[in-house]
Amino acid sequence: MKSSCDVAVIGGGVIGHSVAYQLAKRKIDVAVFESEKIGQKATRAAAGMLGAHSEVEEEDLFFKFSVDSQKMFLPLQQELLSISGIDIQYNREGMLKLVFSEKKKADLIGKTNGRQGQTWLSPDEVKACEPEVTSKALGALFFPDDGHVSPIALNQAFSKGAAKLGAAIHEHSPVMNIAKDGENFLLHTPNGKVSCAKVVVANGPWSHYFFQQLGLPNQVFPVKGECLSLKTSEKWLTKTIFFDHCYLVPKNDGRIIVGATMIHDEWSHSPTASGIQWLLEKAKEILPKISKAEFDTAWAGLRPQTSDGKPYIGYHPEDENLVFATGHYRNGILLSPVTGTMVRDLVEKRSFTSEYTEEFSIDRCRKLEVS
Amino acid sequence: MKSSCDVAVIGGGVIGHSVAYQLAKRKIDVAVFESEKIGQKATRAAAGMLGAHSEVEEEDLFFKFSVDSQKMFLPLQQELLSISGIDIQYNREGMLKLVFSEKKKADLIGKTNGRQGQTWLSPDEVKACEPEVTSKALGALFFPDDGHVSPIALNQAFSKGAAKLGAAIHEHSPVMNIAKDGENFLLHTPNGKVSCAKVVVANGPWSHYFFQQLGLPNQVFPVKGECLSLKTSEKWLTKTIFFDHCYLVPKNDGRIIVGATMIHDEWSHSPTASGIQWLLEKAKEILPKISKAEFDTAWAGLRPQTSDGKPYIGYHPEDENLVFATGHYRNGILLSPVTGTMVRDLVEKRSFTSEYTEEFSIDRCRKLEVS
Amino acid sequence: MKSSCDVAVIGGGVIGHSVAYQLAKRKIDVAVFESEKIGQKATRAAAGMLGAHSEVEEEDLFFKFSVDSQKMFLPLQQELLSISGIDIQYNREGMLKLVFSEKKKADLIGKTNGRQGQTWLSPDEVKACEPEVTSKALGALFFPDDGHVSPIALNQAFSKGAAKLGAAIHEHSPVMNIAKDGENFLLHTPNGKVSCAKVVVANGPWSHYFFQQLGLPNQVFPVKGECLSLKTSEKWLTKTIFFDHCYLVPKNDGRIIVGATMIHDEWSHSPTASGIQWLLEKAKEILPKISKAEFDTAWAGLRPQTSDGKPYIGYHPEDENLVFATGHYRNGILLSPVTGTMVRDLVEKRSFTSEYTEEFSIDRCRKLEVS
Amino acid sequence: MKSSCDVAVIGGGVIGHSVAYQLAKRKIDVAVFESEKIGQKATRAAAGMLGAHSEVEEEDLFFKFSVDSQKMFLPLQQELLSISGIDIQYNREGMLKLVFSEKKKADLIGKTNGRQGQTWLSPDEVKACEPEVTSKALGALFFPDDGHVSPIALNQAFSKGAAKLGAAIHEHSPVMNIAKDGENFLLHTPNGKVSCAKVVVANGPWSHYFFQQLGLPNQVFPVKGECLSLKTSEKWLTKTIFFDHCYLVPKNDGRIIVGATMIHDEWSHSPTASGIQWLLEKAKEILPKISKAEFDTAWAGLRPQTSDGKPYIGYHPEDENLVFATGHYRNGILLSPVTGTMVRDLVEKRSFTSEYTEEFSIDRCRKLEVS
Repeated sequence: MKSSCDVAVIGGGVIGHSVAYQLAKRKIDVAVFESEKIGQKATRAAAGMLGAHSEVEEEDLFFKFSVDSQKMFLPLQQELLSISGIDIQYNREGMLKLVFSEKKKADLIGKTNGRQGQTWLSPDEVKACEPEVTSKALGALFFPDDGHVSPIALNQAFSKGAAKLGAAIHEHSPVMNIAKDGENFLLHTPNGKVSCAKVVVANGPWSHYFFQQLGLPNQVFPVKGECLSLKTSEKWLTKTIFFDHCYLVPKNDGRIIVGATMIHDEWSHSPTASGIQWLLEKAKEILPKISKAEFDTAWAGLRPQTSDGKPYIGYHPEDENLVFATGHYRNGILLSPVTGTMVRDLVEKRSFTSEYTEEFSIDRCRKLEVS
Repeated sequence: MKSSCDVAVIGGGVIGHSVAYQLAKRKIDVAVFESEKIGQKATRAAAGMLGAHSEVEEEDLFFKFSVDSQKMFLPLQQELLSISGIDIQYNREGMLKLVFSEKKKADLIGKTNGRQGQTWLSPDEVKACEPEVTSKALGALFFPDDGHVSPIALNQAFSKGAAKLGAAIHEHSPVMNIAKDGENFLLHTPNGKVSCAKVVVANGPWSHYFFQQLGLPNQVFPVKGECLSLKTSEKWLTKTIFFDHCYLVPKNDGRIIVGATMIHDEWSHSPTASGIQWLLEKAKEILPKISKAEFDTAWAGLRPQTSDGKPYIGYHPEDENLVFATGHYRNGILLSPVTGTMVRDLVEKRSFTSEYTEEFSIDRCRKLEVS
Repeated sequence: MKSSCDVAVIGGGVIGHSVAYQLAKRKIDVAVFESEKIGQKATRAAAGMLGAHSEVEEEDLFFKFSVDSQKMFLPLQQELLSISGIDIQYNREGMLKLVFSEKKKADLIGKTNGRQGQTWLSPDEVKACEPEVTSKALGALFFPDDGHVSPIALNQAFSKGAAKLGAAIHEHSPVMNIAKDGENFLLHTPNGKVSCAKVVVANGPWSHYFFQQLGLPNQVFPVKGECLSLKTSEKWLTKTIFFDHCYLVPKNDGRIIVGATMIHDEWSHSPTASGIQWLLEKAKEILPKISKAEFDTAWAGLRPQTSDGKPYIGYHPEDENLVFATGHYRNGILLSPVTGTMVRDLVEKRSFTSEYTEEFSIDRCRKLEVS
Repeated sequence: MKSSCDVAVIGGGVIGHSVAYQLAKRKIDVAVFESEKIGQKATRAAAGMLGAHSEVEEEDLFFKFSVDSQKMFLPLQQELLSISGIDIQYNREGMLKLVFSEKKKADLIGKTNGRQGQTWLSPDEVKACEPEVTSKALGALFFPDDGHVSPIALNQAFSKGAAKLGAAIHEHSPVMNIAKDGENFLLHTPNGKVSCAKVVVANGPWSHYFFQQLGLPNQVFPVKGECLSLKTSEKWLTKTIFFDHCYLVPKNDGRIIVGATMIHDEWSHSPTASGIQWLLEKAKEILPKISKAEFDTAWAGLRPQTSDGKPYIGYHPEDENLVFATGHYRNGILLSPVTGTMVRDLVEKRSFTSEYTEEFSIDRCRKLEVS
């Protein structure tokens, strides 16, 4: 392990690696520090949905941020393929959000009426495009631009791409302490100390520890998400199906991923009997035929949640050499491209601001309390 | 592969290997032919319950056969450990058969009253020995002599033990055809022909093929059994729990095995979404706390069923050099020791009979039809 | 399992699946019968090299056949991606054949001088394009058109594509016997009999069994090939390197595959200590830095070899409803596209002939003996 | 995670778990903190040899300590089996230390002459007990009391046993900081703070970090050890074979473990191509037949080395509530029982001393420097 670098990124998930990739493209000497193996935590828990339109119901700045990020995937797919050789398996078949109550239907249509990138489908239209889906739905909102990628492939592509551009990727290298050392920071790890000019904290729920260590009141909570995958001999789904926080994502290799539970303040990485049972019940409601599918595997990961549901992306209030990029909750995969470029700009341009800097700022909580 | 042996055993599961082990102990030149890897089919599907008393409700010859076999496990454990170095993980904590209806209770107590090896436990007594088990049961029959082993370890111990005594074990060696060749048989396999004096057919539901090929009307059907295992940080169970064809087997390593579905005439080896869902529901009814357990893995295997529910163990009606040992259904692990010694006697002693030979004879169906 | 189909393909490797895919494209009712899991044998043993120019030294019909097949990969990649969603990971960086003796150099240059699709590189030119490769070579032949695919992905893409077009894929369904039944064939499998009008035998070294069963003297021998994969943090290779039957294939995910030993008449599927040791020594000679690479995994598979080194692709001499496609040895991946279309034509067009039919005919051996 | 405990043990390997088990037996409220999964690091790297006599050449205190520990395994096996249900697979077939030079032979015989627990075997005697071992050796020292256990099973048995007695085992819970908090310590972990009265630091090479953090100059270095396992169909070895830091350990399940390289100051957990190649070469020298064995798998782990080769087991020089138990290098499995009881005594009895306390004391280096 080199004893110094220009920018140290703490966290080897999709957020940390997207940041490292963007910095490496600018020829900045960047190193990623991952405490275990890369991509094993929130990144691994994800199904890889890119649901800018389906996950976000209000047309606010967060929605705009999501749409900005979603649009980056198409060029990114080519770019990452050519630099890393890894295909992120970008699927753009769209997403169906099933509706089962008149109230929800009125609500959804009202709220999103005329909004670009979505169409209301009647039960017959749902049947026409997804014949195996339950006929009990009153219809569905169709989001043609929402799709999915492989989270593991995306993380590997960012990581290989960054490495090829000169970044160092350190696995099994937890950062225990961020200490000031004159102008620089000294990162303490069990395998040595590393001096760096700037630090990006991007390790999901574990960022909580560094907020504390660096004197900030911000909180990041883990929310465990359990998932499972099923194999089908024929293709029973084309589009991603979404209903009541549960989704079915048809992968190209014939698997259907079913996710995800939300277990708050739970640090365990293991899927539980009750989580799997709930997912199987939900999946059967939506796609009755799925009960015949082959059970493949189950897993879980921890998503980083914040008190107001929005990520923290910004400078430490008293030190612009410390940048946070965490708290992306269920949207880490979707938001990774735009977070990468935004953090790159924060790192490169002292006191950088954009329309998003206030929205995701670290001290927004404090300001609320004061005002 | 040697081009000849004295006895060829077709099938590398626990029945075939028990037979091979007993023959090798008599210094007979025996070879096992397994089409894929040993112990992957019915043997792998089993949870390893030794339920002579709990699985068999009538005190008939089959019950006696089961009890005979169960008693062989204790000396076998020592014998196999010392010859193969493998511990079959024999657990003798007993089994509880939970009862939920008055009718079933009266029925069970009546039928088994005074029968040795079982006691009726009141709800309070059930609670006392298994505090985490549901309090909704009206009581339970307790079978102190019923326990369990590791099916994989048992099969490996028989296999290593047989090998050490001189048996040849051939994996990836399917027998395609059993042809008469003068006094001998010629087994056709894709990797060569093997000449042998005697053949034992012990390949579970696939035995059906050889009954046909050898001109017999006997049928063996596959019944798929799906299982799953869960991990718990504490020990929630001591004894095996049995209820409505579903069982929970607490293994020494902290796993609880939940089994098993019964899907008739199904040749697929894969667990399905509906099977896993059903097992999880059943397990929760019996042991509510299990919903917090870590989901470990799921699998399936094919059990060989016959028309009258009893195995076929005996000579081909027209050729005593052909012996069948198949159709053990859910009891293959339990019955493997006694099947091994019975087949050894059939092979060694021309026209051997015992109290069991008629009971499990190959032509018992024909006789029934004729009479 | 359906009890009949139009064409039955025996063997679920890359040859059988390519045939099934081409037949399904013609709307023919085709079923694949695989004895274990698809793609586990010769297909899995392969590194996926497409070495039409580098593997074949004579400019004969076999060379032409290889080049024809290699040219099919580019359109096939798109076609399979769009129908199956699976990317076969086609890499076209070219191949270097290293030369270490003056004799071999003269020989190679002489033989291939002016041949299209290859260039001689001096040691400096080798160093320029692959700086980590040993500088002990006297130069290398460069084959810009030779590349590689992922054999597993190719097999899955053919299989999923065929299934999507209506083919049935049966795993764990060994065919034990091909019997004549009037105009049709009756295939005996342990899970039932299947009637079909035509049969394609494509199960590699196991085809030997059906040649025998169908009265033909043709022989197919297994040649075990052992491989291993290594992981590197940086990219040490761009092109495939070839030397003395050993190759190093740089995969997109950062692995380097090293292959392959050739162990004749060996039916075991397991890599051995000596095979791994030999491969590691060879790899180190070619790419000294590789000794620092992370050891990933090792495996082996059986390649089907024939007496004259050429595959058998053609009609049974007495029955045009029986077609063989086997014996592709080390070239199964490369030759799968053209074998698929050639067998499709043999199946569709009674007495079909092309420039290749005689070359690969089943009775070419007999003819040689007679003449 | 509970917010307090009496004793916190940092490190979920075999040392930490042995300590936790002994403390839990005394009904002390103990919790283990493991940063990833238990038993994945030095513990996993070990082959499990118990080589008190063969590894230690001087009859000093360290030798006595080793022999004391080795004697504890027999009663421990029973004790752990009955409390945890896990068999540690204790093998007592003895060990052979092969000698290839006259000098080494004279040296070894001289040094160990008359020492109990060892015998000199001539080449013929070696041949008699291990016929497959190379006949090139000039003889061997035989250590009948040296054997081996399964390191994974031992660690699990300690862990399950401790848990059953009330200990808490926390995986994925790295301790980042040990802070004084009045009379107590406050352990900072990413998932919360834990208050405790006493701390045992037992996390192998990562202990180095806490020595530093707690103001001590002691150093613990990682030494990577690579291992591999091979499978044989027959039993080619009975005893463990030792030669030139390389060993072959015949496990009961038919595997032979070959270990281990020693790569200094290397933090990576991955086996390398050169390590595997070296091990295969060494293994072939000792047991020529091994080249035919099936290659199973390879792995690596980090062993904790100290400057004088002896472990640190003792109080922090200024704080008896802080105990270290680390630096066991290649002898962690062997020394785990006696380290467990020694640390238990250190924790329970303020200012406890024994004949070993000075030998393994934390400030022995400082004393050396001063004197």
